[in-house]
Amino acid sequence: MSRKRIVVALVAAVAMTAFPIAARAAEPLDPAASDPVAMGWMRGAPPPVDKRVTAQDGGHLQFPRTRWSFSHMREMLPSRRVPAAPPPASRLPTALRADLDAVTFTPMGGGASMTWAQAMQATYADGMIVLHRGRVVYERYYGVTTARTPHILFSVTKSFVGTLVECLIADGVIDENALLSRYVPELAMSGFGDATIRQTLDMTTALDFSEAYTDPRADIARLAIASGAVPAPPNYPGPRTIDDFLPTVPKKGEHGRVFTYRSANTEALGWVVARVTGRNVADLISERLLAPMGAEQDGDMLVDSSGAPMAAGGLNLTLRDLARFGELMRNKGRMGGKQIVPERIVDKIAAGGDKTAFAAASYATLPGWSYKSQWWISHDSHGAYMARGVHGQALYVDPKAEMVIARFASHPVAGNVANDPISLPAYRAMADALASGKRR
Amino acid sequence: MSRKRIVVALVAAVAMTAFPIAARAAEPLDPAASDPVAMGWMRGAPPPVDKRVTAQDGGHLQFPRTRWSFSHMREMLPSRRVPAAPPPASRLPTALRADLDAVTFTPMGGGASMTWAQAMQATYADGMIVLHRGRVVYERYYGVTTARTPHILFSVTKSFVGTLVECLIADGVIDENALLSRYVPELAMSGFGDATIRQTLDMTTALDFSEAYTDPRADIARLAIASGAVPAPPNYPGPRTIDDFLPTVPKKGEHGRVFTYRSANTEALGWVVARVTGRNVADLISERLLAPMGAEQDGDMLVDSSGAPMAAGGLNLTLRDLARFGELMRNKGRMGGKQIVPERIVDKIAAGGDKTAFAAASYATLPGWSYKSQWWISHDSHGAYMARGVHGQALYVDPKAEMVIARFASHPVAGNVANDPISLPAYRAMADALASGKRR
Repeated sequence: MSRKRIVVALVAAVAMTAFPIAARAAEPLDPAASDPVAMGWMRGAPPPVDKRVTAQDGGHLQFPRTRWSFSHMREMLPSRRVPAAPPPASRLPTALRADLDAVTFTPMGGGASMTWAQAMQATYADGMIVLHRGRVVYERYYGVTTARTPHILFSVTKSFVGTLVECLIADGVIDENALLSRYVPELAMSGFGDATIRQTLDMTTALDFSEAYTDPRADIARLAIASGAVPAPPNYPGPRTIDDFLPTVPKKGEHGRVFTYRSANTEALGWVVARVTGRNVADLISERLLAPMGAEQDGDMLVDSSGAPMAAGGLNLTLRDLARFGELMRNKGRMGGKQIVPERIVDKIAAGGDKTAFAAASYATLPGWSYKSQWWISHDSHGAYMARGVHGQALYVDPKAEMVIARFASHPVAGNVANDPISLPAYRAMADALASGKRR
Repeated sequence: MSRKRIVVALVAAVAMTAFPIAARAAEPLDPAASDPVAMGWMRGAPPPVDKRVTAQDGGHLQFPRTRWSFSHMREMLPSRRVPAAPPPASRLPTALRADLDAVTFTPMGGGASMTWAQAMQATYADGMIVLHRGRVVYERYYGVTTARTPHILFSVTKSFVGTLVECLIADGVIDENALLSRYVPELAMSGFGDATIRQTLDMTTALDFSEAYTDPRADIARLAIASGAVPAPPNYPGPRTIDDFLPTVPKKGEHGRVFTYRSANTEALGWVVARVTGRNVADLISERLLAPMGAEQDGDMLVDSSGAPMAAGGLNLTLRDLARFGELMRNKGRMGGKQIVPERIVDKIAAGGDKTAFAAASYATLPGWSYKSQWWISHDSHGAYMARGVHGQALYVDPKAEMVIARFASHPVAGNVANDPISLPAYRAMADALASGKRR
């Protein structure tokens, strides 16, 4: 098949499967109208054909079906169990505050002030939890999502993988200055061939890989097919596993200069971890992070057809377990009296990366930020840092305010630029409200 | 597409996907040679191509890959969480006996006597647990299966569904004498149209549905494609969900006369349950059976592309949780001081069904047995009864010996006739050994 025909087939396939189509919808339904309970997805036996959500036609990644599917990924795709801790789970004491819905802030760019409650609705939240000094002060679930629902984290997964890789570096199992190809020779001829582990962790690799979710011809769409997240079109000639895909990524430019967000980096790290440890990132995230920190419910990791976890975005956890990970980071790697992640790793992440390299990526909503070891660092006066996933997934750690926020969402736009102008000021306003000690 | 072309396409597809091929292998590897660890399935990053197990090519149901896949189904197919009990799980006290491997018996048909240990090996066991008076006296795992591994139960699932339906009948939610089509009008024109719930539960429906696992043209192969357990061939014109498949099953003969084992009956019951309760059998098995009995680990239920659970064979549980279900039955529905299943239901099942109707099915290894509410009843002097799954899955309840046996297996032959001549005498010998109180 010629290159042109491959592209045509791919465009047709992705258009059919609609992977990145959500972001292109001109007038997506508003949060209330798109409520997944109101829309009646997957109800009835069988559900009416027009109310089904399935990966077979790619509808599972198409808004507004996403408002249901993000809480039901394993029912549509193969997944691996990510074991929680043996019971009992770590305690997550609750001291709910009814006044926090009234926290007020001004969105980026000015305009009318909003309340926290309005912000949740406006950003298509599926669940929101706020911890202050380790106690749950706010916890809400929306639509089809409950406290027991593993929800897809998308790229928040990367921060688990980044933290895990830092642990393996601290163990001396991985050398951050080594070339990736030292561990995975299959990548020697690819764009990753002369990139270091550190560059890959910090996403300063220079690759010919487009992450544009709105472009069906982007490489991220090919990766989605390779990973099994979206169905391959008939006779699709491209790679059918993540590890078949990665060697096809070419180099473009010089490594180590500028930050460019590319999911392929995290998948490559997943391969390194698997090769070095003989285990996979799903098992290691369980053993090194979730189980020691006392997660209360098994997670689900989406896997490709060779069994490889989708390291860049395949983890599904409950919101409380995601919040526990934030609390682990806020406590400098300690929880339940155990040092689970070395303190110096948390300090290194919180200190952030190269702001100049980051600025080159021109994120309008993230001025002065940086990226370090698969985390997003604000460099604000609170030292806040985040794990961020497409469609609004977030884990926000504010050390100064002693606050952790975890959010699930199914925003119609495949990019945080759509919710950051509301979310980021809201998170800071919540931090200020909690730090002030005042009640409304 | 003409009927002939459909058949040709289907044969080609099933040959490709190899669903029932296992049983046709002339010389399957012996248990030691087919050990999944020794064979190295899915090891390495990525696994060598010839060592992969995936549903995409149907290899997941092909022996000897089955020795790995039966313990990893959710990693290849969509599944739904079947919640266990909130911790702590019910206690399963352990009093292991080292002497039981030496229990000796003579296989059906005579020949040399065997030991229990030899029997386990000869029947390709993946796990085996024996409870005596509620205590674990024997527990072994083989190959890639561990105490924490949900293993596919195949048709042992049916006995969970049958027990659940009996509970719903006892609740007055389902009338066992009603026609199936009263609950599911979509089945009115099918072979199920004038069958009663009772006939369907006891599999005395008269349907034109072949369960022959060794025939790629059999209806069970079409059901497997509809359920998503095996991939549909390109342009496959047949039903793509279980509920699309069931109305295509014609009648053949008179209902209520003879027992004929057909998985379609259980899938139809699953549809009735979903229609009547507005819930699905996976959730109800959790709520009515697994959670109240104190199951220790979430199960996985395979689902079709409309989200419908595979009621005839899609449940995956750990061996200890399967054993708990046997213990629940042995204790006449009571566990942990609670009456979870009404005693009269257990009594009705244990009393068995119509032996004459059963004899018509001519099971060589099950003389004098009957079938009741999705359970197999031996009518032996111990009153033993079983849940039975293809490839050797078993839950054996021996009330007189106060014994429960749960077994996982990946026997190369898709039919219990291949292991019954060893398994059934072995189970009885174990019962006798335990009941005698003597130690070896």
